[in-house]
Amino acid sequence: MYKLVLIRHGESTWNLENRFTGWTDVELTPTGVSQALSAGQLLKAEGYEFDVAYTSVLKRAIHTLNHVLDGMDRAWLPVVKDWRLNERHYGGLQGLNKADMAKQYGDEQVLIWRRSYDTPPPPLDAADPRGQRQDPRYARLAPEQVPLTECLKDTVARVLPCWNDTLAPAISAGQRIVLAAHGNSIRALVKYLDDISDADIVGLNIPNGIPLVYELGADLKPIRSYYLGDAAAAAAAAAAVAAQGKKA
Amino acid sequence: MYKLVLIRHGESTWNLENRFTGWTDVELTPTGVSQALSAGQLLKAEGYEFDVAYTSVLKRAIHTLNHVLDGMDRAWLPVVKDWRLNERHYGGLQGLNKADMAKQYGDEQVLIWRRSYDTPPPPLDAADPRGQRQDPRYARLAPEQVPLTECLKDTVARVLPCWNDTLAPAISAGQRIVLAAHGNSIRALVKYLDDISDADIVGLNIPNGIPLVYELGADLKPIRSYYLGDAAAAAAAAAAVAAQGKKA
Repeated sequence: MYKLVLIRHGESTWNLENRFTGWTDVELTPTGVSQALSAGQLLKAEGYEFDVAYTSVLKRAIHTLNHVLDGMDRAWLPVVKDWRLNERHYGGLQGLNKADMAKQYGDEQVLIWRRSYDTPPPPLDAADPRGQRQDPRYARLAPEQVPLTECLKDTVARVLPCWNDTLAPAISAGQRIVLAAHGNSIRALVKYLDDISDADIVGLNIPNGIPLVYELGADLKPIRSYYLGDAAAAAAAAAAVAAQGKKA
Repeated sequence: MYKLVLIRHGESTWNLENRFTGWTDVELTPTGVSQALSAGQLLKAEGYEFDVAYTSVLKRAIHTLNHVLDGMDRAWLPVVKDWRLNERHYGGLQGLNKADMAKQYGDEQVLIWRRSYDTPPPPLDAADPRGQRQDPRYARLAPEQVPLTECLKDTVARVLPCWNDTLAPAISAGQRIVLAAHGNSIRALVKYLDDISDADIVGLNIPNGIPLVYELGADLKPIRSYYLGDAAAAAAAAAAVAAQGKKA
């Protein structure tokens, strides 16, 4: 049996400001740092050991992973940063306030943009300074690989190749993996692993900074999965994520 | 022409306590964090860009690198952690105070232990809890690869393979490298690059947290090298390193 641990980054400045973040590279808040350190300490207390860590190329996930590793006293573990684990690109919504958008367009439209499986938000213009086509971290990608917007289906389409060509072979080779990423890149993985339908994935929310453990069989199919630590706290944190797009 | 940037970690808790550290995994002090951040901001202000970063498996170097990258807003750069860039192993001196040792054994003996090219300090016992043979980060090495003591010659003997099989090929392939490591692993590199004699390397000290830039020709031989920023501050910091082993 294999174990895989997924952690959504701790609270970011734009989580706090209730803004659509996507590929915008915002910092963790002090609360986010503390969530990440606690997650690392919890993993250490529970006896988890890892061989390699994965994260995105966005600092809220990278810093979360660094603090998790510090909390475990495992700063020396190898870390792989893969752009395919980035958050879903939020297109023209990047930088805008979720509640403001709900007031302007209605809760229902914002829920569609946030959670529809296959309807992306309006795209950014390629030259929009909120976009990433001029960002040097993506310089080796073809321009069309750097999205101008994404629905979750698009995110799944880039996360799955990362699973297939990188994560799954590493797990099968016996590597114990911790992965720090984002609400939607983790939802993409969970959708695939748990075979969740396009309709049902809309209702699934990933709380910040709480380790999500998958126990996988030899075929890498999940045997079971659970949040580490206080289950009630994890449920409350997931509910808070779900409520972010409401007007009130 | 290629550029290579070397940075000794910022001040550590045991630099502050004037203790022999070696492979003991001590933290940066707040001053050390600030030195590392400043080094990153300086590199950014001077327009430096890197493709890949290297460091040791010791947290004072790893954290230095993380803060340097944060200071440059380049947390997303790939980082390679290589045990061969670790500090010189200080053997039986690890954990002991440099000035206490000078009082007990005399300045001359301590200078020999600190700076002799080929006389190592007394070895640790393999079972000594101050040693690293039980440390999981070295689990993949053969026991005899995990030193019980080292002189600088021993450190050179493990740093040079890292240069030859990893760093030099990457530089020749056009990769712009920043490397955060330790006083003696950097002295080992500098000795090789600048072809410094076994006798002369004794007098060379590397200050904490100041970027040391090498400009290299197509043959990877140095054209020139210099500390970035305030030259007088770099010289004063190097002199302070040299004075650590004195009784006073």
